[in-house]
Amino acid sequence: MESTKERIASAVPGGVTSPRGYRASGVSVGIKANQGLDLALLVSDVPARAAAVFTTNLAIAAPVIVSREHLARSGGVARAVIVNSGCANACTGDEGLQVAREMAAETAALVGCPADQVLVASTGVIGVALPIEKIRCGLPLAFRALGADQGPHAARAIMTTDPFPKESAARVSVGGRWVGIGGMAKGSGMIEPMMATMLGFVTTDAAVPPPLLDRALREAVNDTFNAITVDGECSTNDCVMLLANGASGVDVSETTYREFVAGLTDVCRELALGIVRGGEGATKLVTVIVTGGATSADARKAAKAIANSPLVKTAIHGGDPNWGRLIAVAGRAGVAFDLSRAAVTIGSIVLFRDGRPYDEMAPQAAEYLKGTDLTVSVDLGAGRASSTVWTCDLSAEYVRINADYRT
Amino acid sequence: MESTKERIASAVPGGVTSPRGYRASGVSVGIKANQGLDLALLVSDVPARAAAVFTTNLAIAAPVIVSREHLARSGGVARAVIVNSGCANACTGDEGLQVAREMAAETAALVGCPADQVLVASTGVIGVALPIEKIRCGLPLAFRALGADQGPHAARAIMTTDPFPKESAARVSVGGRWVGIGGMAKGSGMIEPMMATMLGFVTTDAAVPPPLLDRALREAVNDTFNAITVDGECSTNDCVMLLANGASGVDVSETTYREFVAGLTDVCRELALGIVRGGEGATKLVTVIVTGGATSADARKAAKAIANSPLVKTAIHGGDPNWGRLIAVAGRAGVAFDLSRAAVTIGSIVLFRDGRPYDEMAPQAAEYLKGTDLTVSVDLGAGRASSTVWTCDLSAEYVRINADYRT
Repeated sequence: MESTKERIASAVPGGVTSPRGYRASGVSVGIKANQGLDLALLVSDVPARAAAVFTTNLAIAAPVIVSREHLARSGGVARAVIVNSGCANACTGDEGLQVAREMAAETAALVGCPADQVLVASTGVIGVALPIEKIRCGLPLAFRALGADQGPHAARAIMTTDPFPKESAARVSVGGRWVGIGGMAKGSGMIEPMMATMLGFVTTDAAVPPPLLDRALREAVNDTFNAITVDGECSTNDCVMLLANGASGVDVSETTYREFVAGLTDVCRELALGIVRGGEGATKLVTVIVTGGATSADARKAAKAIANSPLVKTAIHGGDPNWGRLIAVAGRAGVAFDLSRAAVTIGSIVLFRDGRPYDEMAPQAAEYLKGTDLTVSVDLGAGRASSTVWTCDLSAEYVRINADYRT
Repeated sequence: MESTKERIASAVPGGVTSPRGYRASGVSVGIKANQGLDLALLVSDVPARAAAVFTTNLAIAAPVIVSREHLARSGGVARAVIVNSGCANACTGDEGLQVAREMAAETAALVGCPADQVLVASTGVIGVALPIEKIRCGLPLAFRALGADQGPHAARAIMTTDPFPKESAARVSVGGRWVGIGGMAKGSGMIEPMMATMLGFVTTDAAVPPPLLDRALREAVNDTFNAITVDGECSTNDCVMLLANGASGVDVSETTYREFVAGLTDVCRELALGIVRGGEGATKLVTVIVTGGATSADARKAAKAIANSPLVKTAIHGGDPNWGRLIAVAGRAGVAFDLSRAAVTIGSIVLFRDGRPYDEMAPQAAEYLKGTDLTVSVDLGAGRASSTVWTCDLSAEYVRINADYRT
């Protein structure tokens, strides 16, 4: 973790256009009612190797279907990514599919590449038709606005209810030579209200062969985007896309793979934590560490159960060192658990261990919980595997945001 | 459902002491800080056949361990049930076990039966020692207060954060002869805050042979207590106990089993729905019906996912006919799902079917959602199995209750 922080810290500030050979833009085309930026375009100067992971939701949105098709047809090559916010183009039937295909085709015509080298993403209201004419009119604007310094506009154009844009960039030493990795993301976690899909876009100027690129993305996403939760929901439109255009002239091989993945994971983690910090109604970022799992899967399952527990999340919101709730969730998580060997630690304060409470430490733990960047740890007492996930607290503001969303 | 309502409606008002041969009491012994009733005693005039289902939480509480032991040792026979509120006697180690055993032993001495014919239950704060001396002093009070008309006091004595007591009773025709079934319950759903275990106690004056009694309880609980949720939490102390003392002189056999189970299910459903109506912060009771499941397990899984979705629950709280959230949860529930055949109905208003939205019906659905007793239905489009579960809405009040619980 130390070296991780160092690596991020030494990185240039920036996002998707930090690596060499990428330009981006963000413009307003009138999809969002409030006239905010709502169309983002990301273009690589040369065809880039592309990998992506998509939502596992079976109510899959049109842009996800089209992007998956294009990746397959192009053999994992992409020149551009076109993204709109304000409308998810989900549950929109055949018409929605045509709209997503047209978005790609119009973009391809401007960029000068085959349509299947364009990836598409949408985020916003479900079940509403995406007004293709607005995109058709806006695309040339987005194309003309492209620039290597326009990453921040692109990051804003993909936002919906996000309180702030999420960008991250790093320069990583791969076999002794530097490559750039950059990214942007939006969303308020795994939540899927009408306007809060999780989208992530990551670029690198390293040259990464397709199988390694795919493996790297899956590995990085597993410990970052897939390790966060706001409320356990999973969207119809979620996706994380990674482009590698080789503009640095540095090749990633099996030998240097680990260096590349470490840098990629850093960038993804930064973006993912930004999503949690900006979670709907969130006031605290909570790192949930589960140790003592019989297996890694058990540890992850228990960590997710804790991170999604409304009782844990409300206790943390209230600054209540309510260790009984943590134990109770661990016990019901459906994993191996031994109460007599289990332990609960809040910050570095042990509140339960060896079958007995340490309630005298509660005031100290309550003091710690007044912070905004918190760690809670649960030992399952059943083995040696561990897992870390990130979540936020559950506030009355979350209820207000989601109860009053369309009213 | 029609006949169900009729059966309940024709029942005598009452609870655990409505069937013949049961007496109960509820007294205050000083475990609760507010001096409320906190010790309930239920006694059958003669040894009764007993069955019980317990929490699946692995952080199992002392009274659950003791009750399970006693049922095994007594061969499924019980004379009495002793229950305290205000302290869960959970995560209290060997000392807690001794306290639970002593509660049973002291009760047995008063009632005049073997200790293993006494079942024990506790609900309240986790990880705090249960003051056995208060129970020792209070038990004679509870014993002297026993009466066939004291069921309502017992129902109040098992409450913690419950806004109202839950009692239900029915008279059921079994093979042409009438038997009584009665029950009481507490809790605010599956939730497990420091003080909201789910407890249910059901009595009958039918004579039911052990294997049928156990089967009947499991069957009834599956469609009632196990089909409700407030926030998806499962307590360390949950249990439902059923006593059958035969005082009616009516035997339940394989031939009349279905009649008995139907009555038992009615009583359990009434209690379970009371728990949801009294769920923390709840303002609406929501019946979630999932149809079109490939299997019953799929239908139940999807129904539970919908019933636990914070986005669905907040939308209902806000009266927002947000069908996209229902589809999105169905799609991520991990069950067979076909978007092109799926459907969402709120009340009787279809909002999505055959792959297209009916948003023009949204205002009508919004009007329907102003009610307090609501039904939402989702068809998975994948088969013919169905499942019904009950939940409540998620309000800012839920957050307030659980964030400020110990402060």
